[in-house]
Amino acid sequence: METLSAARAFDGVQGVYRHASAATGTDMTFSVFVPAHDEGERLPVVWYLSGLTCTHANVTEKGEYRAACAKHRLIFVAPDTSPRGEFVPDDPDGAYDFGLGAGFYVDATQDPWAANYQMWSYITQELPELLFANFPGDPTRQSIMGHSMGGHGALTIGLSHPQRFRAVSAFAPIVAPSQVPWGQKALRGYLGSHREAWRKHDAVALIEDGARLPELLVDQGADDAFLEKELRPELLRKACADAGIHLTLNLRPGYDHSYYFVSTFMADHLAWHAARLA
Amino acid sequence: METLSAARAFDGVQGVYRHASAATGTDMTFSVFVPAHDEGERLPVVWYLSGLTCTHANVTEKGEYRAACAKHRLIFVAPDTSPRGEFVPDDPDGAYDFGLGAGFYVDATQDPWAANYQMWSYITQELPELLFANFPGDPTRQSIMGHSMGGHGALTIGLSHPQRFRAVSAFAPIVAPSQVPWGQKALRGYLGSHREAWRKHDAVALIEDGARLPELLVDQGADDAFLEKELRPELLRKACADAGIHLTLNLRPGYDHSYYFVSTFMADHLAWHAARLA
Repeated sequence: METLSAARAFDGVQGVYRHASAATGTDMTFSVFVPAHDEGERLPVVWYLSGLTCTHANVTEKGEYRAACAKHRLIFVAPDTSPRGEFVPDDPDGAYDFGLGAGFYVDATQDPWAANYQMWSYITQELPELLFANFPGDPTRQSIMGHSMGGHGALTIGLSHPQRFRAVSAFAPIVAPSQVPWGQKALRGYLGSHREAWRKHDAVALIEDGARLPELLVDQGADDAFLEKELRPELLRKACADAGIHLTLNLRPGYDHSYYFVSTFMADHLAWHAARLA
Repeated sequence: METLSAARAFDGVQGVYRHASAATGTDMTFSVFVPAHDEGERLPVVWYLSGLTCTHANVTEKGEYRAACAKHRLIFVAPDTSPRGEFVPDDPDGAYDFGLGAGFYVDATQDPWAANYQMWSYITQELPELLFANFPGDPTRQSIMGHSMGGHGALTIGLSHPQRFRAVSAFAPIVAPSQVPWGQKALRGYLGSHREAWRKHDAVALIEDGARLPELLVDQGADDAFLEKELRPELLRKACADAGIHLTLNLRPGYDHSYYFVSTFMADHLAWHAARLA
């Protein structure tokens, strides 16, 4: 693991790191904020999964999470959203919603994607091992959150690992990729046309199929341009209601899909996570 | 004035605007955050001047000022650092410390710079007129801050307008451009080789020549790579001590020159400004 940069911020260290990933067959870059802490102390870890077109850098620069992480003493990890590199295949039309920057947090089974697009394994197995070997995180106190495509990742990974994550939340998530254009394109491309394989990567379908968490927190901008076509939080509301999952769904008037929205509610989410990671 | 973007953030509006500037002879872009407020209410205005290579976007994305501005109900204005455009002359070697992105907040008197590089007039006259005509700012409650080259701008403009600005602060400012390489190159280029003309654009010289403010606040990273060669806060400390200006100079161990440093102490500075703008 190579340190690309490390800067003091809010009395902790904001670093950016690169390593050779076995899962993706590429170098992968991620950022970690470690707040001030006592020697030998292990801190709770919040995983943050980013949305379409993003790298680790978007939330690292625009997410405004460091003040709250310093206050609550949380480690904040921001991975990339796909493998990258000259030899990594990309959307043939160069679209932003598939390929580079759009890994959708699945292990692809279809060629040519399967060779590198193994983001589920990367996020759930390889990167955690690297993280806990190199940073003072406490593996018994983890939570996960994400934005948009990363909200989809946080919900599906959280629902699939109820013992690992003590809190799961999302900003403007794709809640039912099987039912919306972004998700259908991605799941068909990475996983093939058999829709049964998509259900493990669809939060609403996972809940319908029996996945359970005690609660979820979602914030959604009411003026988000993707709300009705791609995000459809009402599908998550119904699934949670049917399953007895306590969903707090905050619809925020006037807010869009950008980091102006995410940063506004970041401190609320981190306080909610911190209370569950204590 | 054209609105390039406007997004809800922290219950206010973060906008980016463009207008044709008479001072610079170019279009100029700036950002304004207006917090939630009552109809007809006029709010205090904090001017933020950015450093070398920056546009309005750097602090807008990385400055983490909106939470504090919403809390204290402050309008936050971030102008660009130079004129820009195809026909605007730039440093002949393409250096980052002169020309585009490096206007140094002076009115250039030398060719070919004088035609466009009129940043002093732009920041002190033209943009304030535009601002108060289009936003709910209270011209009787203004303050100014800046970072690096913009700290130089905030100090020199603040010292030259003691009746206009109720608070003046800076992050890692260039305090004595006449005595350091960045400043000497800029002042010689824009103002010519007669050093007497430089003194109105050098905070330490201004104080030596009689400019007075009751107090100044400066934060400076102790691990800032530019500290000893370009910033030299000890020169400001001596000038303020000799002049009876109360300088709070916080040297911050471990911090560098980046927005990780600025954002860490932004809320402190804005609270300090708010107390003086109340």
